[in-house]
Amino acid sequence: MPKIHDITLAMTPRMPVWPGGPKPVMDRVMSIGQDGAPCNVTQLNFGAHTGTHLDAPLHFIKDGNGVEKLDLDVLVGPALLVEVGDDVDMVTRETLEELDIPAGTERLLIRSRNSLAWASNPEDFDETFVAISPCGARWLVEQGIKLVGVDYLSVAPFRDDYSIETHVILLEAGVIPVEGLNLAEVDPGQYQLACLPIKIEGCDGAPCRTVLIEE
Amino acid sequence: MPKIHDITLAMTPRMPVWPGGPKPVMDRVMSIGQDGAPCNVTQLNFGAHTGTHLDAPLHFIKDGNGVEKLDLDVLVGPALLVEVGDDVDMVTRETLEELDIPAGTERLLIRSRNSLAWASNPEDFDETFVAISPCGARWLVEQGIKLVGVDYLSVAPFRDDYSIETHVILLEAGVIPVEGLNLAEVDPGQYQLACLPIKIEGCDGAPCRTVLIEE
Repeated sequence: MPKIHDITLAMTPRMPVWPGGPKPVMDRVMSIGQDGAPCNVTQLNFGAHTGTHLDAPLHFIKDGNGVEKLDLDVLVGPALLVEVGDDVDMVTRETLEELDIPAGTERLLIRSRNSLAWASNPEDFDETFVAISPCGARWLVEQGIKLVGVDYLSVAPFRDDYSIETHVILLEAGVIPVEGLNLAEVDPGQYQLACLPIKIEGCDGAPCRTVLIEE
Repeated sequence: MPKIHDITLAMTPRMPVWPGGPKPVMDRVMSIGQDGAPCNVTQLNFGAHTGTHLDAPLHFIKDGNGVEKLDLDVLVGPALLVEVGDDVDMVTRETLEELDIPAGTERLLIRSRNSLAWASNPEDFDETFVAISPCGARWLVEQGIKLVGVDYLSVAPFRDDYSIETHVILLEAGVIPVEGLNLAEVDPGQYQLACLPIKIEGCDGAPCRTVLIEE
């Protein structure tokens, strides 16, 4: 049986969320034995961009597709996991060129120092996270990358100008950004990726359970 | 590239939910251009057992595992899709014995007349859905089935006694029930299943994007 690596963050009421956004709420509305209830039932309330999630074009493109229309042939298939050094603050065109990514790579996951921080179960949002610059995003589009995964809550750096530009470059080109991965426990290399977002009609993003299967 | 079949219901504000439960709410809290917002952002509010979802042991077992602890080696792997006749009202031991399910089958998806109804985008819950009787559930456990998928919103019939018993038999044995599949467009046969629930800490269930990949 091939080994399956879970690279998804657990969703908890404590986890960091985008500044200004509400933390996830899990509300137990039925509990076994209370008022004769036979079972436990939970009501969920969270933002579409919480934890490990992906962005649909609609996130930054007014008439873009919702998450339910993303192509499963992109969300499932071979993926390359690469690593940038702990000294890398931003993934630029130059950072990417130095990685010797093979031509034909369609799904790329980038491990950075971000992944190290997940082990301590942080609760606060860290604005200094490593992400992809607009020129890095353009390079990904030029290379024919169709899905790019990163290990903090946004594919774009925390600066208004870069945040918008990196997202728009990727989403207009049809590249799927997968955000909030925990890549700490997985070695760089080739895997089979399955990144499956919940299928919410007309939504700008969705949590996506994401696994890497050893080949 | 192997063909991927999506057997997941789209989550919408109109879809049927368990009687008494609230329908899903997708609340657009930021919209491009409104108040200078650069992007669309949606807040989600829905029950853990909405649409295509699975049950964790915690749903009916007081100290059972939450959905985040379900075994990915069960959620991903070979699966058999079988069909019962449109005249079948309940999947019993006899129904299952007649299907000639090969020994060693670990993941079983059962298509019934339920699947036909999804094409009309129903909004109301249908209490007459086809589901698995307690004796059918016992047979699945005896056969070593580890995951069973059905095409309406519960694995158990809509009767208080049967609803509890079928769930408890399966969940106590560690069988994962996957509920609310749409199997209308997929032929019976062998596939690779990927059924990936969102990873909600300590939750009794979760929506799970579910796909069948042709072998």
